[in-house]
This record gives sequence, C-alpha cells and structure tokens, in this order.
Amino acid sequence: MAARTVKLAVIPGDGIGPEVIAEGLKVLEAATAPHDLAIETTEYELGARLWHRTGETLPDSVAAELAAHEALFLGAVGDPTVPSGVLERGLLLRLRFDFDHYVNLRPVRLYPGVESPLAGVTPEDIDMLVVREGTEGPYAGAGGVLRKGTPHEIATQDSVNTRFGVERVVRYAFGKAAGRPRKKLTLVHKDNVLTFAGELWQRVVREVGAEYPQVSVDYCHVDAASMFFVNQPARFDVVVTDNLFGDIITDIGAAITGGIGLAASGNINPDNTFPSMFEPVHGSAPDIAGQGKADPTATVLSAAAMLDHLGVPEASRRIEAAVAADLKTRAQGGEPRSTSRIGDDLAARVAEQG
Amino acid sequence: MAARTVKLAVIPGDGIGPEVIAEGLKVLEAATAPHDLAIETTEYELGARLWHRTGETLPDSVAAELAAHEALFLGAVGDPTVPSGVLERGLLLRLRFDFDHYVNLRPVRLYPGVESPLAGVTPEDIDMLVVREGTEGPYAGAGGVLRKGTPHEIATQDSVNTRFGVERVVRYAFGKAAGRPRKKLTLVHKDNVLTFAGELWQRVVREVGAEYPQVSVDYCHVDAASMFFVNQPARFDVVVTDNLFGDIITDIGAAITGGIGLAASGNINPDNTFPSMFEPVHGSAPDIAGQGKADPTATVLSAAAMLDHLGVPEASRRIEAAVAADLKTRAQGGEPRSTSRIGDDLAARVAEQG
Ligand SMILES: CC(C)[C@H](C(=O)O)[C@@H](O)C(=O)O
Ligand SMILES: CC(C)[C@H](C(=O)O)[C@@H](O)C(=O)O
Repeated sequence: MAARTVKLAVIPGDGIGPEVIAEGLKVLEAATAPHDLAIETTEYELGARLWHRTGETLPDSVAAELAAHEALFLGAVGDPTVPSGVLERGLLLRLRFDFDHYVNLRPVRLYPGVESPLAGVTPEDIDMLVVREGTEGPYAGAGGVLRKGTPHEIATQDSVNTRFGVERVVRYAFGKAAGRPRKKLTLVHKDNVLTFAGELWQRVVREVGAEYPQVSVDYCHVDAASMFFVNQPARFDVVVTDNLFGDIITDIGAAITGGIGLAASGNINPDNTFPSMFEPVHGSAPDIAGQGKADPTATVLSAAAMLDHLGVPEASRRIEAAVAADLKTRAQGGEPRSTSRIGDDLAARVAEQG
Repeated sequence: MAARTVKLAVIPGDGIGPEVIAEGLKVLEAATAPHDLAIETTEYELGARLWHRTGETLPDSVAAELAAHEALFLGAVGDPTVPSGVLERGLLLRLRFDFDHYVNLRPVRLYPGVESPLAGVTPEDIDMLVVREGTEGPYAGAGGVLRKGTPHEIATQDSVNTRFGVERVVRYAFGKAAGRPRKKLTLVHKDNVLTFAGELWQRVVREVGAEYPQVSVDYCHVDAASMFFVNQPARFDVVVTDNLFGDIITDIGAAITGGIGLAASGNINPDNTFPSMFEPVHGSAPDIAGQGKADPTATVLSAAAMLDHLGVPEASRRIEAAVAADLKTRAQGGEPRSTSRIGDDLAARVAEQG
C-alpha cells in the first residue's frame, strides 16, 4: 500500500475534455508511481450532458463532495448546445469562486523545438509566469439589465476589487518573483482609465513591494502589455494582473508559445482551505472532439502543476522533462500522433526517468 | 482663395506629440493643395504644461472653441510628471465623450515591405478594420471606492452598455463590412463571463445583422480573438467590439503590423454633431521626445483618415499611397531618417502624385 493517497476529483467535461483528461491521468500515474503516492480518482459527470438531463450545472451535493478532495482535475466545459455562459458561470467559475482559487497560475514558456508564430524568438525570450487573480474583478458576475428589449436598455457589468483580494494575489506574485532568477514583477492594469481599481492595484503593489526590496517592479497598461507580449516578450518575468486582463494576456501567451494545445493552468487556493483545480487553458473544442486529434500536452502540464501543488515537485519536473523531450522530437518531424499516442509516449518517457 | 476652408483644431500635446503633428500637418497641406481646400489651423496648448500651470485639463471655454471646428488633430497626451489618468480622463477621454466619438476606427493593415513580428505573414493575411466603441463600456468612469486605505477597501469599476450606444456602433460596423470585399463582421466580446453586456451586444448584432444579409457574422471571445490576431489574423475582416476590448486588440493589431509607429485612428462622430478627432494610436513616448526619433507615419495616416471623414477621399488615397511607397523603400534599407525628414519625404511623394 502506498504511503500517501491523494483523493483526486476528475471532471472530464465536454468535447475534447474526456480525451485529454484520460492522457493526463495516464501520465500522472506514471509520474507518481515511484513516489509511494497513490492517486485515487473519482469521476464527476458535470457539463453539458448533466445540464441537458437535469438543468443543473453543479448540484450542491456534488460541490460538497468535490470539496472533500485534495485536488480537482478538469478537462474542459462548454458545448454549442448550451447557451454561452451557463456552464462557464455555473460550473467553472463557480468552482473557482466557491473554492477560493484566488491564484490562477499560468506559465508562459516557449519550449525548445516548438515553433512560435513570432519570428526569431528563442526559448530564452519567453519564460514568464502569469499570476492572474481568480476570484473577483469583472468576473464577479455583478451587474444587471434595465428596460431589456427597449430602445432605453442599459446593461452594466461591474468589476469588484477588494484590498483583501488584491493584496493576497499580489503577495503571492511577489513570492514567486523573489524565487526566480530575474526577480522582476510587472503589474498589468489600465490605471489611466479604470482609475478606481487601478489605483488600488498600484497602491497594493507599492506597499507589498516594500517587503520585497530584491524584486524590481514594473507597470504596463494592458494594451501596451498585449503589444509587448508580441514584440518584446523578453520584457516579462512574473506578471500579476486582474481576472479579465489575465484571461486575455494568457491567451496571447499561449499563442506566442505555440498555441493553446500547450498552455497549462492551475486554479490555486494557496491557503488550502479548499481543493485547488488544474485544467488546460483551452476549451472543449467541439469541432475536433472524439477524433483523437486533441493535443493532451496542456492537460499533462496541468497535471505537473498539480504535483507541484501537492508537494511532489520531483514528479512534476519529470513530467516537464518528458514534455520537453517530446516537443523536441516533434520539431524533428514525423507522423502526427493521436491524442492517446501522445499520452502513451509521455507516460513512457516519464516512466523511463523514474 | 480656396473654394472650401476647413477649420482644424490642432492639439499637439506632450512628448513626441508636437513633433509628429508638425509632420502630419505638412503632409495634410501637400495632400489638400490640389483640391482647392484650405486647412485653417488653430493650435491649442492642452496637456501636461497647461495642467502644471493652471491645474486644468480642458477649460470649458476651450472645449466650446474646439466644438466650433470641423475636426480635431491630436498628437499625444500624457507625461510622467502628471498622475496617471489625469490627462487621459480629463482631456482625451473627455473629448471622445463630450464630442460623442462613438466610433473609434482603427485599420489594422500590414503594408508591403513592413516587417511583422509574425513569421511568414504577408499583407494579404492582415487587412482588417477594427470598429471600437468610443463612448461607453468600462470607459464610462463609473465606479467608486469604499473604506479606502483600510483592510476592507473595495474599488469598483462599472461597464455601462446601452442599447442606443451599442446599436449605433454595430450599425456603423455592418455598413463598413458591407462595403468591403469579404463582407465579414466579427463581434469580439466575452459573453460567457460578462453575461449582461455580452447578451446585449450579441442580440444587437443579430438584430442589426438581419438588415445586412450579405454580411457574414462571426463571434469570438476576446481571449480567443487576441490569440487569433497572433496566429490566424486572416480570420478577421471588420471587427466590432467594446471600448476596452477594442483598446487591447488594436494594440495587438499595431504590434502585428509593425508597431505603434504606424497605427492610425479616428475618433469619429458619424452624425457630425461635433467635430471628429484624429490621432495616432501611440502615446507621448517621453523617452524619445525632442530627439527627432519618432515615426510620424501613424499621425500622417490619421490625417488620411481625417480627409476621408471630411469627404476628400482622393487626397486620403494619395497619402496612403505615399506611405505605402515610403514603407517599401524602408524595406530596401538605408539610413534611419529623422521625424521631420520622413515628413518631408512623405509630403514630397504626395505632391508628386498631385
Ligand atoms: C471558459 C472561460 C470562463 C475561462 C475564463 O474566462 O476564465 C477561460 O477562458 C479560461 O481562461 O480559463
Ligand atoms: C491613452 C488611453 C486613455 C487611450 C485609451 O485607452 O483609449 C489609448 O490607449 C488609446 O488606445 O487611444
């Protein structure tokens, strides 16, 4: 019997979600085997099918069960047959909010051998860590509609930013920056227009920054940052930003590092009051679902992030090394592989290093 | 005497603003000369200096004078000595809002000979027109702060979207799409998260779209759109979006088409109830101010947009042709030229074609 058992709730979700999750679990298994660590999975069928059957996105009883796990592993949710926002707000964001995932951690790294759409960039040019706030901002769901359907209709959407919420994620980001060689933190916001929220973010970065004199602090408006991701990505080391700006710039980050098929993320509750959740940045991609065409790498890298969070960094490094090696062989050409074949290859590489 | 005199208010602004505006006026002069059109300019010293001297950003009397012009030509405002937001909100955005510039028109075109940071793209791949809403959304300035400076501080920032405001810009965008060869309109929003505002934008696009059966309509979340600008820019023809998303994606647009030095914009009041305003997308770049290093091309192209708006499209086309020719010669190498030298060269090219 393994010395430690991790209870993992698995939410494969919709579209390509189940396909990539299967490979993620395969690699997770291979990575933890040598560590006397057993992963005990329970699968939850949440997403489009449940919603169609019952009209529910996340029954309270299921939420309570999920909360009793050590971590969550999610594929992707969303489906063209479900109105936009229903599963996003009712399931994905509800989990992030209810489980207080105030750090949405998204590494943006160009792996050697991976082709970037940017001309002439090398892996040295793109190695950042985006720390996206995950529990407030424009994602709060606040707002409303007046006089709907009339010429006088008004729809509002409110960004809610608290000192508490901003400070904890900023503090986390400084901690990350202090642990990296460049020790640089860039705040991305739009304080010249969103003056109320922007001033709060700026002030908190200034105040928390005083505790981290070794970290150099920079600021970039989100429009300029979006441009610099494309034409000066080497500017960035750790980036801290709000929920919506983080959503946007991490997709640019995915684009410049070879696409959404490689972008991993962790929805982290650093205080461990609830389980953290790991998921690829990509969506459910219904157009390629069920065809074995999805790249499971983003999910596999999300599993690596999970192992970091669970305190098994060696296993995490082995997965990253396996991914790096796999991506290098892709650069040398060869047949395109199916989703499960890529998973098999990654699991084999991880096992070899074990 | 010229048959028509256009009264143009000129706001050179801060940093490189005055330098690029001087060249913009030079080229404007050359372009209008053969058209029996006189440009009568009045310069307004608004920006950092006025603010330092008087604490004012836009005195009401000046606003009233500006309103009596046919168009406004603005360089850039903002200066590190002025707190972030003061000039942006107090001058630039006040003009956009007071003069009801509900269309912020930003072409995203890769000119032949210009190097894009994207590998392997050609001018055929990038030719879009972003129609950014200019008078509402998160730019409304709505929001506030509670319990400032305490651990319980809350800062809110509200996006205000009206049927009236969304419909008029969407209608304008459909009109533009209908007049282009591809006849494609993409709405960019985040309707799965910003559900109140997103649903309004979607519904308005659907309803107005029924009047334009020849235009094909697409939708993209802002995060995906930001990614596609980088790895599939050819997807887009006309893009319509809100004020903040438009701010972000047009900077990505500038990045992929060779940088902010070439990106033009028009803040347009299509109803002509107030003067429209033309300005480069770039800021005041204080780091290179006064050194003759700024590229005036974005300002020159903004002058071309102004001539379109003033009903002199032939003069506008001549400026664009001059810019295209100039950019091609840059690709052939040669000494870097000063701001005024580029302006001279462009004016000479425009005159040659006259
Ligand atoms: C699906 C959507 C709600 C989500 C988000 O906006 O956060 C996604 O884009 C992401 O980045 O994880
Ligand atoms: C200076 C700033 C207020 C402005 C904006 O956000 O609109 C600028 O970024 C732009 O795009 O014109």
